[in-house]
Amino acid sequence: MQAISLPRFGGPDAFSLSEFETPAVGAGEVLVRVHATSINPLDYQVRRGDYADLVPLPAITGHDVSGVVEAVGSGVTAFKPGDAVWYTPQIFGGPGSYAEYHVASEAIVGHKPAGLTHLEAASLSLVGGTVWEALFTRAGLRLGETILVHGAAGGVGHVAVQAAKATGAFVFATASGYDADFVRSLGADVVIDYRTEDYVAIVNRETDGAGVDVILDTIGGDTLERSPHALAQLGRVVSIVDIAQPQNLIEAWGRNASYHFVFTRQNRGKLDELATLVARGQLKPHVGKVYPLAGIPDAHADLERPRNGIRGKIGIAIVDDGAAGPR
Amino acid sequence: MQAISLPRFGGPDAFSLSEFETPAVGAGEVLVRVHATSINPLDYQVRRGDYADLVPLPAITGHDVSGVVEAVGSGVTAFKPGDAVWYTPQIFGGPGSYAEYHVASEAIVGHKPAGLTHLEAASLSLVGGTVWEALFTRAGLRLGETILVHGAAGGVGHVAVQAAKATGAFVFATASGYDADFVRSLGADVVIDYRTEDYVAIVNRETDGAGVDVILDTIGGDTLERSPHALAQLGRVVSIVDIAQPQNLIEAWGRNASYHFVFTRQNRGKLDELATLVARGQLKPHVGKVYPLAGIPDAHADLERPRNGIRGKIGIAIVDDGAAGPR
Repeated sequence: MQAISLPRFGGPDAFSLSEFETPAVGAGEVLVRVHATSINPLDYQVRRGDYADLVPLPAITGHDVSGVVEAVGSGVTAFKPGDAVWYTPQIFGGPGSYAEYHVASEAIVGHKPAGLTHLEAASLSLVGGTVWEALFTRAGLRLGETILVHGAAGGVGHVAVQAAKATGAFVFATASGYDADFVRSLGADVVIDYRTEDYVAIVNRETDGAGVDVILDTIGGDTLERSPHALAQLGRVVSIVDIAQPQNLIEAWGRNASYHFVFTRQNRGKLDELATLVARGQLKPHVGKVYPLAGIPDAHADLERPRNGIRGKIGIAIVDDGAAGPR
Repeated sequence: MQAISLPRFGGPDAFSLSEFETPAVGAGEVLVRVHATSINPLDYQVRRGDYADLVPLPAITGHDVSGVVEAVGSGVTAFKPGDAVWYTPQIFGGPGSYAEYHVASEAIVGHKPAGLTHLEAASLSLVGGTVWEALFTRAGLRLGETILVHGAAGGVGHVAVQAAKATGAFVFATASGYDADFVRSLGADVVIDYRTEDYVAIVNRETDGAGVDVILDTIGGDTLERSPHALAQLGRVVSIVDIAQPQNLIEAWGRNASYHFVFTRQNRGKLDELATLVARGQLKPHVGKVYPLAGIPDAHADLERPRNGIRGKIGIAIVDDGAAGPR
C-alpha cells in the first residue's frame, strides 16, 4: 500500500510517500481501506517532534480515518467487511491514518454517519471528539447558557459553534470578517471580527456586563488572561491550545472561574453521540480544501500558515469516491 | 453595643473598639447576640483595603457568627428567640461579625450544630463553606479518589482533610513537621513536611507515578505551576489563594487538568451539610488560639504572620460561655 511516512521530524518536507506492506489484521481488529483522512494541529505538532518521545521513527502518522472494512480478525462482532466506519487511530499507540489501509482494534471504531461523505466523516472524528470533550464532558455547557467560541471558522471552532447551538446555548463567535457569513451560517448569534473589534467589550455590551458562561479557546495568545473579563460568575474557560507563556490569572478568583485544559484523548465513546447529531441535522463538518494522499505535505504547510483563509477542515481524499467523495 | 470597627484601611492598628447602637431587626431578619466570631485571611484582606470598592467606611467587618437569637422580625418562621445559630454575614453586603450584636436575613442563617461550642461553630462557618465549595461543588472529589491538601494545619486545610476523609478519599497533606501529629490526627494518610520534603516526589513515589486526583492549594507561591507534576490525568486543582504572579501552566494540557479558582461565596446551603458531618463525628473544627473582642487587632497580626504556629483557627470569644465557651 502507499502511505505518507515520517522518517525524521521536521517541516512538511520531512514527509515521504512510499510503499509499505498492507498491515495484517489480528484478533479483535478490523482492516480498513482508508477512503479519507484529514489534518489537525496535532498532526503538525507530531511532525515537528513535539511528542518525539511517544512517536518511534519511521512513523505513519494521522488521526482521522473514514473508510470501509476490508477484513475482520477473529472475535470481531460489531463490524463485517463492507461496513463504512470512522475513528481516530490509537493516539500515540501505533500507525496513523496517512495510508491506504489501516488496522485498528474494533473497540475504537464507529459506524460512519450515513449522511456524511468519507471526507466529511474523516474531517469530524478527531475535532468532534475534542469538541464533545471540551464543551460537554469538561465545561458542562448546557441549555440556556452563553458561550464565546474563539476561532469559530477553524476545524474545532466550526464544530463547536454547531454543537453549542444544538445544546441550546447562545453563541458569540470570533472570526475574521471574511468568515463572518460562514460562521453565522453555522448558527452563531453574534459574530465578532477579532481584527477590528474587542471581544471583551462586545460580550459585556451584549450581556449587560453579565459575561458568558463558557469560553472555548482554540487560538492561544492572551486569551487565558483576558477571559475573566468576559466571564460570568462560575464561568468556565476551556483551552485546547497549550501555551508556555506565563499567564496572570489574578482575575479568575473573583469570577470563581474554572479553567479546563484539554489535550486530545481517545474518542470512541463520543463517535456515536456525534453521529446522532449528524443524523438529526444538527452538525455537519465543513471541508474547506481537499488534497490527495501525496498532497499531505502541502496540506500541512497550509494548516500551519496563520490566517490561511481555509474554513473548517482540510481533507485528504485517498480513494476518489465520486458521488460519495469530495464535495 | 461594643464593636471593633474600621475607620480606615490599614494594618491591625487601624481597628478601633467603640460603642455602636444595637442594630434594629427588620422583617425577615433575626437579631443575634454574637457569642463568638473568628478570623480568616479574607478579614485581613478586607482590612488592608483589597476590596475597598465594596466596603464603605467606617465598617464593622468579620465573616463568622455563632450566637443566640435575641429577637426576630415579622415573617420569620425558622428561628425564635433563644435559638443557637451560626452563619456568615452577607459578604460585602453590610455590617460584619466583630460586634456584640448582629442582624441578618433568616435566609442565610443556620441552626448551630449542637455538638460545637460557639467558638467552634464560629471557626467553621466560613472555612467550612469554602471547603464544601472547593472540594465538592467545584472539584467534585469523590469516594476512591486521592487528594493533596496544601497547608493542612491551617484554617481551611484542617477542615479540608477531615471532609476529604469523610468522603472516602486518600489524603496527602503538607504541613510543617511541628504539625505532623495534629494533621495525622485529622485523618491524613500521608503527611509531608514541606520544609524538608518535596511533595511532587512523595506523591509520585506513593502513587507509583499515577498522581493525585485533586490538589487543594491554600498556600499560593508556585503551587499552580507545579501541580501538574503531581496530578493524575483529568486531575483537578482548586485554589483559594489569589496570585498575581504569572503562572506557566504548559504541563496542565498534557494532564487534561482542570483548575478551579475559588473566592468566598455565601454559604447558607452548605451550613446544614456541614452540621450533618459534625453530628456524625466526621468533622470538628480546631480552635488553636482564642482572643476576646478587644484582641482582634492582635488576632489579625497573628494570622498574617507566616508560620505562626497556630493550628486550625483563631477564635474570638465575645461572650464567655463557661462550659460551652472557649476550650
